[in-house]
Amino acid sequence: MNIIEVRTRAREEFVDLTADVERIVAASGMREGVCLVTVPHTTAGVTVNENADPDVRADLAMVLRKIVPDALPYAHGEGNSPAHVKTALVGSSAALIVEDGRLRLGTWQGVFFCEFDGPRIRQAWVQVLGR
Amino acid sequence: MNIIEVRTRAREEFVDLTADVERIVAASGMREGVCLVTVPHTTAGVTVNENADPDVRADLAMVLRKIVPDALPYAHGEGNSPAHVKTALVGSSAALIVEDGRLRLGTWQGVFFCEFDGPRIRQAWVQVLGR
Amino acid sequence: MNIIEVRTRAREEFVDLTADVERIVAASGMREGVCLVTVPHTTAGVTVNENADPDVRADLAMVLRKIVPDALPYAHGEGNSPAHVKTALVGSSAALIVEDGRLRLGTWQGVFFCEFDGPRIRQAWVQVLGR
Repeated sequence: MNIIEVRTRAREEFVDLTADVERIVAASGMREGVCLVTVPHTTAGVTVNENADPDVRADLAMVLRKIVPDALPYAHGEGNSPAHVKTALVGSSAALIVEDGRLRLGTWQGVFFCEFDGPRIRQAWVQVLGR
Repeated sequence: MNIIEVRTRAREEFVDLTADVERIVAASGMREGVCLVTVPHTTAGVTVNENADPDVRADLAMVLRKIVPDALPYAHGEGNSPAHVKTALVGSSAALIVEDGRLRLGTWQGVFFCEFDGPRIRQAWVQVLGR
Repeated sequence: MNIIEVRTRAREEFVDLTADVERIVAASGMREGVCLVTVPHTTAGVTVNENADPDVRADLAMVLRKIVPDALPYAHGEGNSPAHVKTALVGSSAALIVEDGRLRLGTWQGVFFCEFDGPRIRQAWVQVLGR
């Protein structure tokens, strides 16, 4: 397992992990298989989405704030329930394909760490599996 | 493949599967790889989220009921369309990392079966893959 | 890696990939392992949900349109931000179990390509991993 250290700078932020994941896949020497990226936190997730226009991530954050508003009668006392719910909606892992020794993503796809309760020092974990 | 039997007690319920999954990983003898938990139902899913305060799961259920209300003009005749949609939002599988022979989760993470149309007798399926 | 070509016919459409994925698993000769279906696009995803009544998919599309309305002040200029957000909500991959040489799904489960910005010519990628 490989660990990517992620330092987030805002309460909500999408951090591009694609280059780190590509480096880990290349260093593994694996030719064909699967690469699993997991996030070991409960108020941050991971998603695969557009790598070109950062406005797409801003729009995703905007819709998530609308779907999961801060001002609901949450039971959890720490005040970060919206971050937990957003994490459940985007998910805690991204499963990716490796072929010919490299990570296979679509042209416009990137792998993004999704901070919902920052700023914090975070991690993403990467496991490669194959031959 | 290993099968975890899950008996749910309410229409909506989150059942902690973490100890069962850990036991399956330990029994497999696998040292390093991936553990995949899937749910073979279409009105129940699986999510990774906080294992400490049960209020977090209550808040997740509350937001999901708000996002996917019972009173919409659903086309599907069985009356459980909200459960199908909630399943699509949380997802039907959780992919996890195994290292040094044990399931690797963050300190506050647990693996939860998400019942959205109970009470029922359900299953979760667990596949380990690695060396 | 195997590629499934998908031709969508409408702006939003769920295309059943189950038979294609089953054929790829059978052709691989793999007896036990994991099958990963990924979508290399950022305005289309993949989900596992009911294979019987197509009204369930219509209801899923209806709720997603309600959650992610077209008429929000999106920043992204291409006009397809709702499709990007819906993709993040359903996810870009489906991880499935293979046992005894066949894809293991629940009785009512199918694997569906989720078009949110069609009609287009699309792909789904399938990787099998095991022994």
